Amino acid sequence: MRYSQSFIPTLKETPSDAEVISHQLMLRGGYIKKAAAGIYSYLPLGFKVLKKVEAIVREEMERAGAQEILMPMVTPAELWQKSGRWDIYGKELLRLKDRHDRDFCLGPTHEEVVTELVGNYVRSYRDLPLNIFQVQTKFRDEVRPRFGLMRGREFVMKDAYSFHTTDEDAEREYQNMFETYKRIFARCGLKFRAVEADSGAIGGNFSHEFVVLAESGEDAVASCSACDYAANVEKAAAKSKRNPPSHRVAPLDIEHLSTPGRKTVEEVTAFMKVAAEQLVKTLVYLADGNPVVALVRGDHELNEVKFKNVLNCNDLELADAAAVVKVTKSAPGFAGPVGLEGVKIYADHSVEVMDNFVTGGNEKDVHLKNVNIKDFIAEGFYDLRSVIHGDECPKCNGTLEIHRGIEVGHIFKLGTKYAEAMDATFLDSDGVEKPIVMGCYGIGVGRTAAAAIEQNNDESGIIWPMPLTPYEVIITAVNPKDEEIRNASEAIYAELQEKGIEVLLDDRDERPGVKFKDADLLGIPVRLTLGARSLKEGNVELKLRRDKESSNVRLGDAAAEVERIVKEALK
Amino acid sequence: MRYSQSFIPTLKETPSDAEVISHQLMLRGGYIKKAAAGIYSYLPLGFKVLKKVEAIVREEMERAGAQEILMPMVTPAELWQKSGRWDIYGKELLRLKDRHDRDFCLGPTHEEVVTELVGNYVRSYRDLPLNIFQVQTKFRDEVRPRFGLMRGREFVMKDAYSFHTTDEDAEREYQNMFETYKRIFARCGLKFRAVEADSGAIGGNFSHEFVVLAESGEDAVASCSACDYAANVEKAAAKSKRNPPSHRVAPLDIEHLSTPGRKTVEEVTAFMKVAAEQLVKTLVYLADGNPVVALVRGDHELNEVKFKNVLNCNDLELADAAAVVKVTKSAPGFAGPVGLEGVKIYADHSVEVMDNFVTGGNEKDVHLKNVNIKDFIAEGFYDLRSVIHGDECPKCNGTLEIHRGIEVGHIFKLGTKYAEAMDATFLDSDGVEKPIVMGCYGIGVGRTAAAAIEQNNDESGIIWPMPLTPYEVIITAVNPKDEEIRNASEAIYAELQEKGIEVLLDDRDERPGVKFKDADLLGIPVRLTLGARSLKEGNVELKLRRDKESSNVRLGDAAAEVERIVKEALK
Repeated sequence: MRYSQSFIPTLKETPSDAEVISHQLMLRGGYIKKAAAGIYSYLPLGFKVLKKVEAIVREEMERAGAQEILMPMVTPAELWQKSGRWDIYGKELLRLKDRHDRDFCLGPTHEEVVTELVGNYVRSYRDLPLNIFQVQTKFRDEVRPRFGLMRGREFVMKDAYSFHTTDEDAEREYQNMFETYKRIFARCGLKFRAVEADSGAIGGNFSHEFVVLAESGEDAVASCSACDYAANVEKAAAKSKRNPPSHRVAPLDIEHLSTPGRKTVEEVTAFMKVAAEQLVKTLVYLADGNPVVALVRGDHELNEVKFKNVLNCNDLELADAAAVVKVTKSAPGFAGPVGLEGVKIYADHSVEVMDNFVTGGNEKDVHLKNVNIKDFIAEGFYDLRSVIHGDECPKCNGTLEIHRGIEVGHIFKLGTKYAEAMDATFLDSDGVEKPIVMGCYGIGVGRTAAAAIEQNNDESGIIWPMPLTPYEVIITAVNPKDEEIRNASEAIYAELQEKGIEVLLDDRDERPGVKFKDADLLGIPVRLTLGARSLKEGNVELKLRRDKESSNVRLGDAAAEVERIVKEALK
Repeated sequence: MRYSQSFIPTLKETPSDAEVISHQLMLRGGYIKKAAAGIYSYLPLGFKVLKKVEAIVREEMERAGAQEILMPMVTPAELWQKSGRWDIYGKELLRLKDRHDRDFCLGPTHEEVVTELVGNYVRSYRDLPLNIFQVQTKFRDEVRPRFGLMRGREFVMKDAYSFHTTDEDAEREYQNMFETYKRIFARCGLKFRAVEADSGAIGGNFSHEFVVLAESGEDAVASCSACDYAANVEKAAAKSKRNPPSHRVAPLDIEHLSTPGRKTVEEVTAFMKVAAEQLVKTLVYLADGNPVVALVRGDHELNEVKFKNVLNCNDLELADAAAVVKVTKSAPGFAGPVGLEGVKIYADHSVEVMDNFVTGGNEKDVHLKNVNIKDFIAEGFYDLRSVIHGDECPKCNGTLEIHRGIEVGHIFKLGTKYAEAMDATFLDSDGVEKPIVMGCYGIGVGRTAAAAIEQNNDESGIIWPMPLTPYEVIITAVNPKDEEIRNASEAIYAELQEKGIEVLLDDRDERPGVKFKDADLLGIPVRLTLGARSLKEGNVELKLRRDKESSNVRLGDAAAEVERIVKEALK
């Protein structure tokens, strides 16, 4: 493609509402354009990247035996009423009425549609297993869409659903998809981790997220420096280091201390000159509306996903001030477990091995010193906290590291939840009618493109991994009015196209500085520069976007050298 | 692909709500499944066909220099308010509100979005021309969705938009798209006509429809048997055969005849024993609410598109009984031009050359005989009727034929309509700011697949043109439990895959009759049958879906022969 004829509307200024680097660079590089909050058009370059991700996903899904279909975006309410999600799905489900006043919604995910579809046709165990997928535009009415393609409202997703006669067969397919996802993100040229995620009611290790590592990511993942353990921090198991008995200290008597206005861990520990590890935080929550109390060490964070799983409740939220006052009979900021009545106390494992610690006194401006677990009654001790950097690995003696990343894929065993709700059954070989066992497997296609930029950029722009780049090489004709430069550029352009290399010829009548800046901004991995001086010596300048330095290649060898570099990078 | 592992849920019964053959066969063959009225899922076979049409469209659009993008499906109301279509677009525009109560609609077409997008970036004449396209799921809330993919509510469309500095350049691109569309439908293997369509306010011959010929089509097209003239009947010009003066007959005196209860052309001509060609129909319409009268010959049909263009009104509808009574002072069914007052009369050209004809008498149960054009005052004589089979060609002395067909593409010069409404301008080389001149070009992707079936089927099922078929060849292993048959089938299957031929191996444990029926229903163009008897003689049966007869080929030659047939058909 010739740059002069391309629709690549780059911007000089970074739009003010773009917070993360991928969003900024996609707007500045003319990859996408905002149509409304969280709703974007993919311009030619952005569309090419989208198609590259899509093609890799499609090839690997087909290789894994999945079959592609396309379900509708506008889905009838009846299906969602059948599954029960019409009522429990919040405002992210964009509901609408057609001209005949019938209820529909824009599909944010397609468990309902696909379960009805497959359930309609499957008669016997002989019709199973099946794995069907689609690459489709979806809509979730996010309350605060942001970060461009990372958290948009309208977005392109690959969603796959598998159908099985038994749990074992669903688990076999789960492993198949796990390996497929690893191949997909590796082929995209991304650094990623497959991490255990919370599988909620299903249980077992049958939920994994695929996270592209990037400092700007919204997700935190823990991975072991010694073994292959990796998990979302929501899920990662905390190993409490129980002190050996010799180190335990005899309990002292509780002291009431005046701590006027000191409420936070920082304020209390600074005032009392103790470490955060010596303090226990007392947190009041409402579980399905009823107050419950959680205890975690001062330097730890309560993990709400873990707490919710322990409580087995539908809804968990931090109690407001009024509820705290009702439970503790005191102002917020001074809650403690000693003397609490009428509320169950759940403590983290790490509290169990603490001696003579500090807690709130359930009295305004009062904290207690030398509290021990004998001084209150807990329901029990559980894994309630998020792991932190340096924690011991739950699988080995290694140490956990925390990395930030972007969730780009999620695989999940669904069990029979949707099949039972929507009456999707099969007749087994023993003549018994059974619900179909399902799995689901998603990849954010647009988000993968954005995540690739978060992981690969510098102050000048994007640095595309070769498998995802819109063009593999850009030829910068320094002065295309110079006949020698023009002819040489056109010759290499033709030769590269002949070799099947995706090439952008910058034939614009612009200053060289503008062309170099645009090439860097767009992030094309290989640049060939044709200028008068080097051409006189029969040379072309070859520069990799990732490198600072450039090198000279002979004009006659340039196309072959580019082909070698591209093929090597796509291996 | 192995049939035993494919998701091809064929049906034994034709669903009762499927009226046309493409709809019936796509449902029966497991190509699509209905999710709601006018909303379908594409199952694996249907999706493959969709992708084949899409790939041809994409290749030819790119070859023509167009660049692919993807605009959102959920589009903000502000854009439609700017163009004015938010108010004038009817209920087909499905409107919805997001969680913040902002207005959006599902895009039925994207002139607004694309004009805003391009207008935002284009600064000068140097940024033009541009042709950008997308292949996208669209939504039109049809009042009566029907015929499966032919008139659905959610459908896949290719829409392209071009942007130019001058009318001439827009017309050059129009010709480019005209040739591109001809290549696209020819490559799809379809019999089609490119016909002139009504271009409304733009004028000139800058609207063409591409119509796939099929008896079941909703559109009627006229084409000349002698020259290349072809037009939608809405648009086709009628040539009135003016009798040479020697044949004209002297006017007789008007006679009032009693025609009790005879209102229709059939009733009146039968009762009076005259030909329909001797009668003039008097039709009362409301143009923007005001009554107008049209006169056409008894055997002709008024063409509302032509009449509307003559009147240059926004809204035209047949008058109700009350309005007819008000205009004619008589019961409906007896209207005539003689003595009509306070209403303008527009007559078709063919009325101008009639002598002594029959009309209504503007009195209940009365018709007039021997009426002539001197007996009333017409605004003028115009081309107001639709052409009929046997009419003279407006371009040559040939005769028009009327064919039915399905509109699958439409190209249109838009002029500056949207650019002016949405402020999409450019700075010309003379320093003057001007509105961008636009064109738009659509193809119904799903509808093209359905039209291909309407044109290619028999009582047993679909007969796919090779370029659109989901699989090019099906191998029917008559009894896959027979080791010899199984091994031979697997060998040919592997050999064909190696050659890049798309092959479906029917390895199911089913009776041969079931397999043959399914192969015919699915419409795979080439079938190889491996049975015990012919295999003993070293033969394989080869049958083309289009032919009744099959032939034998040597087992060792079968794959090469299939390859030859497929390549020949794709040339």
